[in-house]
Amino acid sequence: MSRHAPGQFVTIEGIEGVGKTTNVAFVAGLLAGFNIEWVRTREPGGTPMAEEIRDLLLAPRDEVVDETTELLLMFAARAQHLRRFILPSLAAGTWVLCDRFTDATYAYQGGGRGVDTARIAQLEALVQGDRKPDHVIILDAPAELGLARAGRRGGLDRFEQETVAFFERVRQVYLDRAADEPQRYHIVDAAQPLDVVQGQLASIVQHLVTAASAPSS
Amino acid sequence: MSRHAPGQFVTIEGIEGVGKTTNVAFVAGLLAGFNIEWVRTREPGGTPMAEEIRDLLLAPRDEVVDETTELLLMFAARAQHLRRFILPSLAAGTWVLCDRFTDATYAYQGGGRGVDTARIAQLEALVQGDRKPDHVIILDAPAELGLARAGRRGGLDRFEQETVAFFERVRQVYLDRAADEPQRYHIVDAAQPLDVVQGQLASIVQHLVTAASAPSS
Repeated sequence: MSRHAPGQFVTIEGIEGVGKTTNVAFVAGLLAGFNIEWVRTREPGGTPMAEEIRDLLLAPRDEVVDETTELLLMFAARAQHLRRFILPSLAAGTWVLCDRFTDATYAYQGGGRGVDTARIAQLEALVQGDRKPDHVIILDAPAELGLARAGRRGGLDRFEQETVAFFERVRQVYLDRAADEPQRYHIVDAAQPLDVVQGQLASIVQHLVTAASAPSS
Repeated sequence: MSRHAPGQFVTIEGIEGVGKTTNVAFVAGLLAGFNIEWVRTREPGGTPMAEEIRDLLLAPRDEVVDETTELLLMFAARAQHLRRFILPSLAAGTWVLCDRFTDATYAYQGGGRGVDTARIAQLEALVQGDRKPDHVIILDAPAELGLARAGRRGGLDRFEQETVAFFERVRQVYLDRAADEPQRYHIVDAAQPLDVVQGQLASIVQHLVTAASAPSS
């Protein structure tokens, strides 16, 4: 029997402007309230090298970025993040809260850009084997609302410059994936006032903590 | 019938210090002598974005680079280079002379680092379909000789810091691959004096030009 239970791998997903940054911090605070050790990270990124890959992906540029290039860069950053940061953290009993993960690749590259889902699944298997997040929290809101909120922050990066239709396709992939695995995915309506959103997040986190501390069979 | 024949895709391979840079330039000069349009490029790199990926791969760093990260970055750069530069050049009738390509991935990541060859083949298929170089010229020399020559140039990058045993494994993969497809691979003994090496290169290029201009069936 190990000295501690492995940490839970929890990802927060959603389109631009749904409040991921604010609510990742809120969830971290909830975990701290349960005396759970946690680390907070994000994709693409999460290690110095993976953050360099992130910069390369998000920089506006004149050169047309081939969709296969983008997909491989995403998974390169993910391989580094997963093996050098996420898995060691989980093994040490620390919960990992990650702003976006592979669901975002299915949503943005697959749904948004029309990349063949089978190619994404092939790279997911190559990089992750069968390791997936234990829980995915989706902050859901209509694309137009999310983009209007994101716009208030000023300069849009290469992804944020995409159209509302693009983000509606992204959103739909998130909802479809959640519908396929209701035990692992938790949808929160992010169009609600922040206090209502956070009340629902508190209830979800309570559920995750209870489930994680239950004796496993 | 098209206005022009597609260009030939010729790659130059070999471990450090075998004279790739000098001899890519020499081969380019030979092609110019045949009035053949050519471009010269290299991997990883070949477009501004792919060169940024190259910098990220070659920079010495404290962070341990996961072998899957390295492999995915190599193929990310390759996807960009192939689709945004190599294929359009070939389609326009221009010959492409490339300093390293996928053979180097099999040699360095597969032979050198022990990455599973099936993983490399999977990514090769994902990025290239069945597109391979029309001809591969291998400049072959013992690892110790190559490294001694490379050392004269000063600072060693992250790959060049590897051991002689590493480069002997790399070399062996090149030789094995050449043995499997003698029509497509051309080995030159790079331990010979430069004028002898270049005499053999001239003979190989003469052969490639004759083959490319022969009427296809």
